Amino acid sequence: MVGAVASGVKKQGALDMAMLVSDSPASAAACFTTNKFKAAPVLVDKETLTSNKGAGISAIVANSGCANSVTGDGGLEDAKKMIEAVDKSLGMGTGHRSSLVMSTGVIGQRLPMDKIISGIKRLSKGDLLGSDHKHWLTCARGIMTTDTFPKLVSKRFTMGNIQYTLAGLAKGAGMICPNMATLLGFFVTDAPVEPKALQSILSKAVSQSFNCISVDGDMSTNDTISALANGAAGGELITQGHPNYNILQEEVTDFAKTLAQLVVHDGEGSTKFITLKINDAITYEDAKKVANSISNSPLFKTAMYGEDANWGRILCATGYAGAEVNPSKTNVSFVPIDGSAELKLLVNGEPQNVDEVRASGILKNEELEVKIDLGTGGGHSCEFWTCDLSHDYVKINGDYRS
Amino acid sequence: MVGAVASGVKKQGALDMAMLVSDSPASAAACFTTNKFKAAPVLVDKETLTSNKGAGISAIVANSGCANSVTGDGGLEDAKKMIEAVDKSLGMGTGHRSSLVMSTGVIGQRLPMDKIISGIKRLSKGDLLGSDHKHWLTCARGIMTTDTFPKLVSKRFTMGNIQYTLAGLAKGAGMICPNMATLLGFFVTDAPVEPKALQSILSKAVSQSFNCISVDGDMSTNDTISALANGAAGGELITQGHPNYNILQEEVTDFAKTLAQLVVHDGEGSTKFITLKINDAITYEDAKKVANSISNSPLFKTAMYGEDANWGRILCATGYAGAEVNPSKTNVSFVPIDGSAELKLLVNGEPQNVDEVRASGILKNEELEVKIDLGTGGGHSCEFWTCDLSHDYVKINGDYRS
Repeated sequence: MVGAVASGVKKQGALDMAMLVSDSPASAAACFTTNKFKAAPVLVDKETLTSNKGAGISAIVANSGCANSVTGDGGLEDAKKMIEAVDKSLGMGTGHRSSLVMSTGVIGQRLPMDKIISGIKRLSKGDLLGSDHKHWLTCARGIMTTDTFPKLVSKRFTMGNIQYTLAGLAKGAGMICPNMATLLGFFVTDAPVEPKALQSILSKAVSQSFNCISVDGDMSTNDTISALANGAAGGELITQGHPNYNILQEEVTDFAKTLAQLVVHDGEGSTKFITLKINDAITYEDAKKVANSISNSPLFKTAMYGEDANWGRILCATGYAGAEVNPSKTNVSFVPIDGSAELKLLVNGEPQNVDEVRASGILKNEELEVKIDLGTGGGHSCEFWTCDLSHDYVKINGDYRS
Repeated sequence: MVGAVASGVKKQGALDMAMLVSDSPASAAACFTTNKFKAAPVLVDKETLTSNKGAGISAIVANSGCANSVTGDGGLEDAKKMIEAVDKSLGMGTGHRSSLVMSTGVIGQRLPMDKIISGIKRLSKGDLLGSDHKHWLTCARGIMTTDTFPKLVSKRFTMGNIQYTLAGLAKGAGMICPNMATLLGFFVTDAPVEPKALQSILSKAVSQSFNCISVDGDMSTNDTISALANGAAGGELITQGHPNYNILQEEVTDFAKTLAQLVVHDGEGSTKFITLKINDAITYEDAKKVANSISNSPLFKTAMYGEDANWGRILCATGYAGAEVNPSKTNVSFVPIDGSAELKLLVNGEPQNVDEVRASGILKNEELEVKIDLGTGGGHSCEFWTCDLSHDYVKINGDYRS
């Protein structure tokens, strides 16, 4: 069951608290930010998952509007009180740490605990919680900050002869950068998964999805993606050696990619959704370095916004990424989404005579793929998603707090 | 003697070629971009300095409007032809490589060599070259691209009882990022300096000046800072062991800092000049990593543009910089330039009750210092200069080529 409420942390009665309650205690896993300043809910959830060994988690509560980050010892106490309030309201008994907690919003402000606690009480009464699409949508809205739409994905898949469900949501539009679990998100499945297997599946999925997107290169102090698996659909318990492990891994990775791409589609102020395909790198890590570097280049991003086929900026960001490159074997192309032939910009390090009319036509689309072959002979690839940098990004972030 | 001419590479008769001619052959040194895609003039200058062992350089020619970068073998030939044309026009004989060459502008286009050669011929006739302030200004204008003002510094200093001069210029407003010799710039001195000593002095000066600035985090394929020393003012030859070596090092470093700061003042679309002082890091490199991370954070830069005291973004960028930090000993302050007391935002990891009126007053100034103590006990510091990210940056770079 999921739902959301307006606790009063955000102004004007906006939804600002989301809750997910599992029918039964679930296996849990999470990936957290690698920022040195970890927010209080991140530190507390880490503690919970360690002490519970990733088992017995029944709920997730997430508030928006205040990140409970860089709030000192008081902030840690607040996060623990949130958990206690959820556990108590849901009759799970205190001291067991049966919930995970997330916060997102402004850094450096304490949570208004009276509002938070009363919000949790109202939510856990149950009449605001449910399992249909409307409830999931409300839940996804409850954790939005600068997001312009709720981010929600669900899918069904079969293992053996049992049908399982994956459903989840995420928030995030700015302070989005790879190499960590980015932003807030959680998803649930009714498949039976042992906690260690769930963590391993989640970590791999996140590395190829939420860690392969960038809006602005800023890594938040609160980034958390967590997963619950309660086994309600039945079937054998999935461990790391189980034949269903790889099937589930693939399903979860695909699912996480879809959810992560929604975040890029909602990139603050963005007007373009750009897929970067980096090929023929010495290693996967090198390919990702190049994608990361291009996706964080303000010059690349503003050129995309201006629909300017200035591929020199792509080369430039490739060259300073710190990855192995063979300049005289490097290729760069724009790949249109309509399935027509790719537009070659650079072949074996030599600039091509570019049909500027066609280039401009491709860049006018809202979606675009940039393909780069690094020419190292290593053969490793990475797929990555990013967006452009527009006037609206500056507007949104020039005055976020007021 | 210095000067500039409109060779026709840029449209509408704008100055686009600058030249510096030394009275006598000089010692030369240079720091180049570390981008894997090095522009043709960078590769050719490296070759020249190696084969000449940094001696016997009489001129520098630099064109703007076309970067001669990612131009394949043809581009290398073009750069060599530029050198030959300068050497020939100045009567230095061919095959000696007596000049250095620089290019800046659009990447991936070949130089229009007829215009370049005729520009060199017109410039080297001498009536366009001179040594007064007007000529230096013209010369600085000749290498501008998106710069809004020419960047020129000169100073006099004394070693022993001889007075020496340092004069130089730079261009750059975008594609500016540290950890390399950023942008184009050159300076000359009439002090007598042995080439190896000159290179060592230049490298150290650049690491604390041009490598400590960032406008947008993009590292160009053409970045070059070079120095000529012709000894015209007399005195003993300065080698690495000479007593004047350290004096000259200090003078050159100060000079380079002033020139580098001019680039930040002209940061594309910028409205604020921000000094970052990172203190108490484990190493100088760690302090620089933090400064680099903050200076490249779009969220920090847009907050500064919006005059929003959102210090959480400073913390956030500090936390993902990859440097050692002690979160519970970290301090953050705004230091006003009027000499009034610093405004403490975070003390020992605890947020302070910030006087928002005073914070907003400090942020309204065009200049500001942000001071961060990482609390590691290591005691190492770094000073770094950056600017904000405004609507105009997006405007300038959304459509650079048209």
